[in-house]
Amino acid sequence: MAKKVYKKTDFPVWEVRRFLEPGPVVLVSSSWKGKYNIMSMGWHTVLEFSPSLIGCMITSANHSFGMIEKSGECVINIPTTELMDEVIGIGNCSGKDTDKFETFGLRPQKASVVSAPLIAECYASFECKLVEKRLLKAYNFFIFEVVKAHAAKRPKYPETMHYRGDGVFMISGKNVSRRSKFRPEKL
Amino acid sequence: MAKKVYKKTDFPVWEVRRFLEPGPVVLVSSSWKGKYNIMSMGWHTVLEFSPSLIGCMITSANHSFGMIEKSGECVINIPTTELMDEVIGIGNCSGKDTDKFETFGLRPQKASVVSAPLIAECYASFECKLVEKRLLKAYNFFIFEVVKAHAAKRPKYPETMHYRGDGVFMISGKNVSRRSKFRPEKL
Repeated sequence: MAKKVYKKTDFPVWEVRRFLEPGPVVLVSSSWKGKYNIMSMGWHTVLEFSPSLIGCMITSANHSFGMIEKSGECVINIPTTELMDEVIGIGNCSGKDTDKFETFGLRPQKASVVSAPLIAECYASFECKLVEKRLLKAYNFFIFEVVKAHAAKRPKYPETMHYRGDGVFMISGKNVSRRSKFRPEKL
Repeated sequence: MAKKVYKKTDFPVWEVRRFLEPGPVVLVSSSWKGKYNIMSMGWHTVLEFSPSLIGCMITSANHSFGMIEKSGECVINIPTTELMDEVIGIGNCSGKDTDKFETFGLRPQKASVVSAPLIAECYASFECKLVEKRLLKAYNFFIFEVVKAHAAKRPKYPETMHYRGDGVFMISGKNVSRRSKFRPEKL
């Protein structure tokens, strides 16, 4: 069955927190020596607005680890709950012996800046360059700069999956604005 | 008006991901030279199960930054949506000139291992020791080890706030288990 493709347009790199800070599971796509891969990832944090920095923990046992370290690039994609089975399946197998785009019926799209592909079926895709490796050996911790961002315009906020471990996902609920209660410089 | 206090019991430190990995706003409490402080924080990630490691970005302009760096300790507390006004108010002011426990009607509780206090009105509290400062200067990035964890038993999952920027919170929605779809070692 064909999956829904999200039509994405340019999105400001300093605003990727809108989708990442709430803590969804993301799909990280990578490219190395003509091969693509995808991994599911829940351990990430925003680190800075501008430059737009994201920190991620990627286990070195993971096939994606070497591809991302060697290429110095990846794309962080935001899947919606329609892709829950794919998110789980992608985490269950290894890119060492599986073409995950083909196996899970996902479509790679050419990125603007990096060689790693966007995932057409994801709500948003953030092209990333590796900028900091000092904690790679001790903690498997990468810092990426988002150099180009793409996001769908509708819905305004995607319904995302937030992993709790033990097979349980929290599904993102309603969005509420408390804008008037914040001091402007604290927004 | 008295706020609800969550009765917390011991919780395994290697399972704090259950509450942190979904990406909620947390309240970080600290102690230095006999004074307590609290900050609201959304930029954090789980980094390891055992030792139980959490990475956090805390702006150096923040009063808590110095207190946490000097004491080498803090407590990461999970507030529920009942505390939304407090979470915003705590972010709007500085511990330099405000006693936040008193101002926001929160009750400090003695921790087991660290000198920073637990927040009685939070669903869970994780006592932390600072273990890694290499990226502190360049990225304001701390790595903490959770050395003792406390969590309420009911409800099973707290209703949490997940910040998107611009005054908008995503409220945690339903929890769904897909345990049977995971390979056991991937849970």
